[in-house]
Amino acid sequence: MKLYQAAASPNSRRVRILLAEKAIEVPMVAVDLGKGEQFSDAYRAINSRRVVPTLVLDDGTSIGEVPAIFRYIEEIYPEPPLIGASPKERALATMWERRAELEGFAAVMETVRNSVAGLKGRAIAGPHDYEQIPALAERGTARVLNFYADFDDQLGEAQYVAGNRFSIADITVAVTVDFATARLKLPIPEKHRALRRWYADVSARPSMTA
Amino acid sequence: MKLYQAAASPNSRRVRILLAEKAIEVPMVAVDLGKGEQFSDAYRAINSRRVVPTLVLDDGTSIGEVPAIFRYIEEIYPEPPLIGASPKERALATMWERRAELEGFAAVMETVRNSVAGLKGRAIAGPHDYEQIPALAERGTARVLNFYADFDDQLGEAQYVAGNRFSIADITVAVTVDFATARLKLPIPEKHRALRRWYADVSARPSMTA
Repeated sequence: MKLYQAAASPNSRRVRILLAEKAIEVPMVAVDLGKGEQFSDAYRAINSRRVVPTLVLDDGTSIGEVPAIFRYIEEIYPEPPLIGASPKERALATMWERRAELEGFAAVMETVRNSVAGLKGRAIAGPHDYEQIPALAERGTARVLNFYADFDDQLGEAQYVAGNRFSIADITVAVTVDFATARLKLPIPEKHRALRRWYADVSARPSMTA
Repeated sequence: MKLYQAAASPNSRRVRILLAEKAIEVPMVAVDLGKGEQFSDAYRAINSRRVVPTLVLDDGTSIGEVPAIFRYIEEIYPEPPLIGASPKERALATMWERRAELEGFAAVMETVRNSVAGLKGRAIAGPHDYEQIPALAERGTARVLNFYADFDDQLGEAQYVAGNRFSIADITVAVTVDFATARLKLPIPEKHRALRRWYADVSARPSMTA
């Protein structure tokens, strides 16, 4: 299999971190987002939604969408478990990863896509063009701060986002924090000590440089 | 286990259909959204995001978020497979279910939440209040029409949304179509024959009355 991805894409990074945690080498194919390569006919044939990343299997099947790629890789390479080692653990990791994405990752993405000049007319990733809505960029800061507060509560009760084990939920929260810090200048506020303790711990993992 | 849910909630319906397809009886606990029961302290202890549905296991563990509930039920009751019978099938069903949710279900929900008078100040489901943004309600119609066109393309090539087998992706698309038809008066346009053929077929399944 091979992974079509882009170095600067936070969604691609989520998958790269998973692969690094599992110590799997997958050939990477760079998609140049700056040149709009994701809109080419060649890439459209690989991913009709025209987003990165896409995992292409040896039989040519394309798997898009990060949670689907996470799931496939975990099934093929179960060790170490990053979704969980039991049905209950897997349900909790899936739940927390999704909450992190809906409330955190998507909020940062929405803010960036509705404010950056280079994304005019491209407020939603994917095959269709939508105009930016400035009110969404404004709302984004409040959403990200609420995300930090909610996950600080959770990390006051658990070592990792989904419980006692590092999981895909930690990957998505860590990528969200880095993305919010770099693009929105919104690092975790000082008052969220549990979240900051977790972030320092998780950021030290070698996989995070992926 | 028991399912906390609401009759009129499309997210609850996604899970009820899954249970009906598997012929599993799970005790249901009604959460009265009209009375705001999802914001009560009792429900908050079950689901910190304060949304329905939530699956509560016999040991008290709460599983929220529809894809996490789908996953848990499928692992405990694997027959008939509704996510898939191989890693590849499961990845494809997960991918298509997610696309249906992002591009269809979430677009309908965003349109409703940003336009209905009773949801003023509640433009995003969950624990935090956000004001409605009228431009989102306007954008919603275009998004839903694009969703129909994209899934018509896919159903021109496959019997079911994710391939040859009925899956969670079909459940989410069917609930989205019903939701858009009822709440936005946006049924599938006549020209999308493949999607209409699929919808007639899937709507006839007994589980769809759930």
